[in-house]
Amino acid sequence: MTPDARFARWRARIDALLETHLPPADLAPVRLHGAMRHAVLGGGKRLRPLLVYAAGRFAGAADAAPLDGAAVAVELIHAYSLVHDDLPAMDDDALRRGQPTVHVAYDEATAILAGDALQALAFQVAAESAVAPAVALEIVRTLALAAGSRGMCGGQALDIDATGRLQDLDALETMHAAKTGALVRAAVRMGALAGGADAQTLARLERYAGALGLAFQIRDDILDVEGDAATLGKTAGKDAAQAKSTYPALLGLDGARARLAEQAGLMRALLAEDGPRADDLLALATLAVERSS
Amino acid sequence: MTPDARFARWRARIDALLETHLPPADLAPVRLHGAMRHAVLGGGKRLRPLLVYAAGRFAGAADAAPLDGAAVAVELIHAYSLVHDDLPAMDDDALRRGQPTVHVAYDEATAILAGDALQALAFQVAAESAVAPAVALEIVRTLALAAGSRGMCGGQALDIDATGRLQDLDALETMHAAKTGALVRAAVRMGALAGGADAQTLARLERYAGALGLAFQIRDDILDVEGDAATLGKTAGKDAAQAKSTYPALLGLDGARARLAEQAGLMRALLAEDGPRADDLLALATLAVERSS
Repeated sequence: MTPDARFARWRARIDALLETHLPPADLAPVRLHGAMRHAVLGGGKRLRPLLVYAAGRFAGAADAAPLDGAAVAVELIHAYSLVHDDLPAMDDDALRRGQPTVHVAYDEATAILAGDALQALAFQVAAESAVAPAVALEIVRTLALAAGSRGMCGGQALDIDATGRLQDLDALETMHAAKTGALVRAAVRMGALAGGADAQTLARLERYAGALGLAFQIRDDILDVEGDAATLGKTAGKDAAQAKSTYPALLGLDGARARLAEQAGLMRALLAEDGPRADDLLALATLAVERSS
Repeated sequence: MTPDARFARWRARIDALLETHLPPADLAPVRLHGAMRHAVLGGGKRLRPLLVYAAGRFAGAADAAPLDGAAVAVELIHAYSLVHDDLPAMDDDALRRGQPTVHVAYDEATAILAGDALQALAFQVAAESAVAPAVALEIVRTLALAAGSRGMCGGQALDIDATGRLQDLDALETMHAAKTGALVRAAVRMGALAGGADAQTLARLERYAGALGLAFQIRDDILDVEGDAATLGKTAGKDAAQAKSTYPALLGLDGARARLAEQAGLMRALLAEDGPRADDLLALATLAVERSS
């Protein structure tokens, strides 16, 4: 099976699992549950679950079942973070994946509560992972650290603090490493833990995941300069218009491309001797580096 | 040692633990970390941690150490919920325990993120409980279920839905059982789990905790009618002014007092044959029923 075929299978799997783990739309409180479903089931690339499954397979998981808990949990955290980031007091976005954001489709209070409840659900599902208790506990801890003030929430706080002023490259990378990188690294680590990885494999995958998160962000910034709105599904040139610090702004477009190629090379080098079991992780690396949306 | 002496000791213990588990105020992002500390370290009765310790001692914990993780975690969840409940889009409160609320002292975005990060920290600390992995995992699950859409967040959603219209007694109890009751029951259950309780003890304590949560709420409603602002530390008569459904509104003041006495009797009956090990739980029951603030 090709990586792409596996990704399609894993995407179908995660969509079905998310559907099952979310409270039914007709269960009270229906407005809250409707908002939670709207936030999670509106599509998305499911990148983080794919990373869980790919890292788990790399680490030696015989099948996907022990990886499901981590895959669902990380996507629920990602979905809640988008709901809260879109709030009027934060980025104030009305559209997400072509749909009204949760506070627009419902209301602000419901959006806050839906995000909160999705976070709680994520930890419930992570704790219910079909792995040994000590492994499930380490999955919960990994996710909590990545989601917290020294991870995702902290990164969002740094991003807000920096709005309207130029950051240097160090500050930019620190912010991205927390805001989006922490959850990407957590996805890889949780999959590897559930797949039974040893300490050495965990350390190697941590480096892979760091490079992957960075590559995704650099590609995002380049696309914002190069892309057109139709392909991106969002407004191009938004970063420049908002005077945001980006890789192209700090390094020039060629400099940003070189930095991206560097991450791609690093990921390939890290997995060069692993043979077919690294196929999925390498395909995800290529996806991060070459994607056009 | 009297229950009161133990409560004083446990309160000092939990305050010290919260101080240790919160990120230092000078660690970046400092604004976020300052807001988290403001939310948690501003005092409070620490009722939920006391319930963890009391239930743990009842269940047979030799000392407080295995109970600490659950005690810290439940208080962090409680603190985050207050931060979000106080937001302009929710209850829009400017004062909490005589101090500016987090979105007033900082800003709305920081308050949202601080609440989010406190929730993540709660699950991290719960997962790090000094108990066997399977027990820690059940503590995490208990907390997640209580915090989620069928517990605390769901109760807040029901409360918002009901604003401005009169609820019947069933709807009122369903709302309170979720909004504040779920976390009270979780505190008792987590303490009992960490203390090594068997299934029968867990079931009995679940009934105690249900009655305790209800008693707290009824007493709250009665105090709002009877109390004066100086004793309460908040505005008396607020419920009536907001046309909120309350026990006195639905049952009359005498009816509410009778319902409160019923809960007190139930708690005493449940623990009647346990001797000194039930002292703390009975003292907390008395506190819930007789408190004047």
